[in-house]
Amino acid sequence: MPTFQTVRGMRDLLPEEARMLNYVVSKAREVAELYGYKEVITPVVEQYELLGAKSGEEIRSRMFTFKDLGDRTVALRPEFTASVARLATTTLRNEPRPLRILSVGSVYRYDEPQRGRYREFWQSNYELMGSSKPEADAEIIMLTNSLMKAAGLKNYAIKLGHIGVLKGILSQENVDDRVQNSVLQLMDKKEYDEALRLVDSDRCREVLQGLLELKGRKVSETVDKMKEYVKGYDQALAAAENLYEILELVTESGCQIETVEAGFARGLEYYTGMIFEVYISELDIALGGGGRYDKLIELFGGEATPAVGVAHGLDRIALAMQMQNAFQETGKQKRVVIIPVKEKLKTEALKISQMVRDAGVSVEFEVMGRKMAKALEDADRRKMDYAIIVGERELKKGAVVIRDLAKREQSVVEIGKVVKKIRG
Amino acid sequence: MPTFQTVRGMRDLLPEEARMLNYVVSKAREVAELYGYKEVITPVVEQYELLGAKSGEEIRSRMFTFKDLGDRTVALRPEFTASVARLATTTLRNEPRPLRILSVGSVYRYDEPQRGRYREFWQSNYELMGSSKPEADAEIIMLTNSLMKAAGLKNYAIKLGHIGVLKGILSQENVDDRVQNSVLQLMDKKEYDEALRLVDSDRCREVLQGLLELKGRKVSETVDKMKEYVKGYDQALAAAENLYEILELVTESGCQIETVEAGFARGLEYYTGMIFEVYISELDIALGGGGRYDKLIELFGGEATPAVGVAHGLDRIALAMQMQNAFQETGKQKRVVIIPVKEKLKTEALKISQMVRDAGVSVEFEVMGRKMAKALEDADRRKMDYAIIVGERELKKGAVVIRDLAKREQSVVEIGKVVKKIRG
Repeated sequence: MPTFQTVRGMRDLLPEEARMLNYVVSKAREVAELYGYKEVITPVVEQYELLGAKSGEEIRSRMFTFKDLGDRTVALRPEFTASVARLATTTLRNEPRPLRILSVGSVYRYDEPQRGRYREFWQSNYELMGSSKPEADAEIIMLTNSLMKAAGLKNYAIKLGHIGVLKGILSQENVDDRVQNSVLQLMDKKEYDEALRLVDSDRCREVLQGLLELKGRKVSETVDKMKEYVKGYDQALAAAENLYEILELVTESGCQIETVEAGFARGLEYYTGMIFEVYISELDIALGGGGRYDKLIELFGGEATPAVGVAHGLDRIALAMQMQNAFQETGKQKRVVIIPVKEKLKTEALKISQMVRDAGVSVEFEVMGRKMAKALEDADRRKMDYAIIVGERELKKGAVVIRDLAKREQSVVEIGKVVKKIRG
Repeated sequence: MPTFQTVRGMRDLLPEEARMLNYVVSKAREVAELYGYKEVITPVVEQYELLGAKSGEEIRSRMFTFKDLGDRTVALRPEFTASVARLATTTLRNEPRPLRILSVGSVYRYDEPQRGRYREFWQSNYELMGSSKPEADAEIIMLTNSLMKAAGLKNYAIKLGHIGVLKGILSQENVDDRVQNSVLQLMDKKEYDEALRLVDSDRCREVLQGLLELKGRKVSETVDKMKEYVKGYDQALAAAENLYEILELVTESGCQIETVEAGFARGLEYYTGMIFEVYISELDIALGGGGRYDKLIELFGGEATPAVGVAHGLDRIALAMQMQNAFQETGKQKRVVIIPVKEKLKTEALKISQMVRDAGVSVEFEVMGRKMAKALEDADRRKMDYAIIVGERELKKGAVVIRDLAKREQSVVEIGKVVKKIRG
């Protein structure tokens, strides 16, 4: 039989990578705790209708869709927001607002694999439902900032925009929703000429063209200019003012915004307000992104509920940490092997190993039945710290030999003092 | 639009349940650490051929199988062992033996939903590859025992058997592998008459019938009787002796075995030696189970590698903990809200919230823009511990009001001393 491989686009995380990902997951949970977000766990398999409802053609066509044995059309979740919206409109319908919900887990998209992009990836997803206030938008950006800091990332940059500016203009020009979505999706892919070609009005095209060029690091100034550009488009102006307010709240609270881009759009159709993404210069894909989506809960059959959320790419953040050498491992446990000198001592050795573990010390039992020299050689190669050697003579005195593998020293230690000796 | 539901057999874990599951996951990782198991993360989506290779008809027919957009037949993993075996024969081919591997995550089986059984469920899976020694078998049972203890479960019972006894008899009677598997599967389902009907030899049927009745809490005696029963079947006798040795190692190390059952079989075709399961009386499904599978790695194209492993049902363990009231929450964080008295103070309030979080204290910002009385009422209803009230008069003196919501007392506190006040 030939050896098997992973399915294209999927990958294994080996112990080092798995530890990194678990570390980032733990940071995501810590941040959630700090901001009062409660974790829920929703299924990987959901109704296709739910997941496809508002995610945009782009993502819909890249979902892992299939029929289950009950002939239901289902799919692997490509993101968390649809599942959380489902919860908010059903089980959590009567919970007091705001709802602050964390989801953490794997999501699935049939994308072309590249560095940092796989078909199975991990996200932490925070949803804040029930508030239309700019402080809610600010909170979602601030917690993203907190996660980047908690991960130890340096020189990350947050990019900010507002889908309401672009949508406001298009709506006032009576461009219908379907065409609006196409325009925004083309903009997301930076196919600006194609996007503008879908717009009839000369004046509208001109204003959009101007906005597309409007981006900058002097973020307040940029938003001021946006307000000038969109004069006469009332909804767009209100959106720009909303953006200004969010920007002020965020920066005053110590979270730096790197750029504001007026022509910034994101792939998901459901955004209605502020949108943002976070980057590091070492990677050309976003580490996370989110925004406001005030119509989504309604669409899922719930009461009209303003909402804002963000998803962070956890395996990408782990990759970024690797690139920036940001992973600080603290309190590394001592690694210990336990080796019985003779076959017939293994029961005693097992007992001692159990006693040591009960005290919270990690120990690997020599299960290969190797002779002492071989077993010690193997422990050396695997860079273990100590070997507990269980021999007949010492056992009679209620003791074992403990060998410090780095120093190549050993001494006889009473069984009751083994843990103390190893902990040092 | 109608409201959406979860797909049949799938379910949401709400915050309380999610916290329980995460707690059990953390215990599974602690146990892995104590025994020297390293975690890997393998994909949920694998080749159908890999997952179906040796899992048994029963599980094969209950897999979520589909074609991906590249026309590959893939499936959602119904268990972890096939994926770990894939790793052991490819990426980890040249790692020194033994390999100790942990996997934690969700697995998928199209089973009839019932209490404690869903189509998406969570497992911790430990594989010990490279050793044929009984101390390896013992280790897998002992770490299961450690996990049950770590979860705080009381009165759990471990059931032990040995597939080599049954297979040894059938092999010596020249029953072919396919029929052997059918016999064992029927036995697993406790359809003993149907199982025996597949066996031709009268003597063999008689011995098997005897073994089926052989189970007991006097575990050493039971194994002794097994040895008598299978006299003349050399392989079966060796298996019974192996079982005896494992039993001795385990019980001597302080792990109690509740029953030994000679006719005990498990659903997966790949077991070759010791098998075991763990139960509590409150649930009629196993909390975990495993055993030895010495032929599997070869089948996957690797070098012949003896191996033993176990999978624990983590959501079932969480359910068991709930039933036994075993969940001990330690060090519960204080829950705090922060409320600006006026709209224009929200920037200051946001700044203070950030400072408090930077000190590690969780705080929820009042994002609904509610008036003070309403906001406090909501905080009361949600059983928050403290409210930080940001008012103009106090701010001028560099202070805020902190209200103890349970005691209904409040006091003015310098901003720099807020964290200390809340921590108490």
